[in-house]
Amino acid sequence: MTILYKASAERAGQWAAAFARQAPGVPFRIWPDIGDPEAVEYLLLWQPPERIAETFPNLKMVFSVGAGVDQLDFSKLPPGLPVVRMLEPGIAESMAEFVCMATLMLHRDMVAYLDQQRRRQWREIQVQPGARRRVGILGLGQLGQASLAKLRPFGFPLSGWNRSPRQIEGVACFTGADELPAFLAQTDILICLLPLTEATRGILNARLFAALPPGAAIINVGRGGHLVEADLLAALETGQLSGAMIDVLDPEPPPAEHPFWRHPRIVMTPHIASMTRPEGGAAFVLETIERHRRGLPIEGLVPRGQEY
Amino acid sequence: MTILYKASAERAGQWAAAFARQAPGVPFRIWPDIGDPEAVEYLLLWQPPERIAETFPNLKMVFSVGAGVDQLDFSKLPPGLPVVRMLEPGIAESMAEFVCMATLMLHRDMVAYLDQQRRRQWREIQVQPGARRRVGILGLGQLGQASLAKLRPFGFPLSGWNRSPRQIEGVACFTGADELPAFLAQTDILICLLPLTEATRGILNARLFAALPPGAAIINVGRGGHLVEADLLAALETGQLSGAMIDVLDPEPPPAEHPFWRHPRIVMTPHIASMTRPEGGAAFVLETIERHRRGLPIEGLVPRGQEY
Repeated sequence: MTILYKASAERAGQWAAAFARQAPGVPFRIWPDIGDPEAVEYLLLWQPPERIAETFPNLKMVFSVGAGVDQLDFSKLPPGLPVVRMLEPGIAESMAEFVCMATLMLHRDMVAYLDQQRRRQWREIQVQPGARRRVGILGLGQLGQASLAKLRPFGFPLSGWNRSPRQIEGVACFTGADELPAFLAQTDILICLLPLTEATRGILNARLFAALPPGAAIINVGRGGHLVEADLLAALETGQLSGAMIDVLDPEPPPAEHPFWRHPRIVMTPHIASMTRPEGGAAFVLETIERHRRGLPIEGLVPRGQEY
Repeated sequence: MTILYKASAERAGQWAAAFARQAPGVPFRIWPDIGDPEAVEYLLLWQPPERIAETFPNLKMVFSVGAGVDQLDFSKLPPGLPVVRMLEPGIAESMAEFVCMATLMLHRDMVAYLDQQRRRQWREIQVQPGARRRVGILGLGQLGQASLAKLRPFGFPLSGWNRSPRQIEGVACFTGADELPAFLAQTDILICLLPLTEATRGILNARLFAALPPGAAIINVGRGGHLVEADLLAALETGQLSGAMIDVLDPEPPPAEHPFWRHPRIVMTPHIASMTRPEGGAAFVLETIERHRRGLPIEGLVPRGQEY
């Protein structure tokens, strides 16, 4: 059996090293060096190649390198092929770290201070107590809940919004479209951790920004497709929003002339908020392959027709 | 009695408002509008004025607006005049928030990402698990301990160094000059929270940087006088240090031509890591005045001759 990797070229070496340590006998290949396509039984990928069924006749399973699978076009994958999302503790840990860092940066006016540093300006901004900075998360799945746990010790009043009801201790939970305006009206720092679906595409738009308190700030660690970029620029221009931390774009990377690169109120990072650790990811892939061979239930299997 | 304020002009209005709310009958003046100098009984200040005894013959007490008093030249203060440092819960809370934010920023490569954004570069850097990022604090007083408490949930191996012995659960504690090299050798992110004394002036120097693991990063939230600026620039140049978060300088503000303003590996903030909240600060000052009048013991009184 061969495992073929087709994701970030920068990180391919670390994945290869992790598999070599944990399964030295298993052939591991890095796209586009596919070797014998008939030997490829497992694909570990971000975006699938074209004509996947024809190219790899003996494919048994596809793994997403990330926790999300919304980047996959399922119509191009053979219907019977199992698709497994990455379940690796580092994904939630790194996301919660990043969300907490980004929230503290907005809370402590770092977007303004970074801009002041560029302009050689030394001017203090009065610190607000954490108890007066209301932090709200869109999307209360595993990543949202891990992030809330890390935010709790700072004393921020915490809230969250989810499509279906959730109950989380110490967090004011809002549900469904009806309660979205009430959630937004009490959120000074808004974090988007939603899955990207047709219902959430473009949800970070002018109407949503207008429903936040004036001077609110946003963190997008969901997907680029959640954000209407022109609406963010307009809301920063009027001051309705005071700053944004943007980790995801559509497309990635953004073109060189993209206005976010040099915007004084936007801190942009290259889709690194959450990152699968190759060591843990390889362990999960190898364990899943073994379970699949033995006919055991597979954790992280994506139900086809309900793909997010 | 009049309270005279002589500190940050930007924040004077907030202090005035806090005193007006809490003690509407007490005259509160903002330097240089001192009114009748004979009426001034309490000074709330960062730096004292010249000829303080001659100007204010009825002065009863001096309050520092901050937790530290190292900025004061005690030789210019009348020997019998009580000097009180600010004890206000917001000081430790804001410091711990900032230290945690700065540590997460260095842990998550934000100094490199901010530089990449300026250069329109989209390149991911592999996340390191928190468990592999060793964080060490120089100075285990109240602020150091509050910071450690906020860092604990992130799984960083924590250590600290202090002049006199300390025991803190879950923190490897090092003591005295003898143990400083061992402390430094196991610290990837170093946080300076020392008081500024003749023994600690210039402690962040080339020799200390060389004792850290290659690629370490530093956070200076102590005083500008702790840092030998040229040595920091040299260590960033060689890569011995990978980044620095600098909140304090000497002098403040730094001149417009200062190399830190535009350095790609230095994030500089205008002495805002810890900030007294006027509301809590006014409450502390008023309570202390009342205790002083009634002859009760004063919290925060600085023992003369041992002034840090």
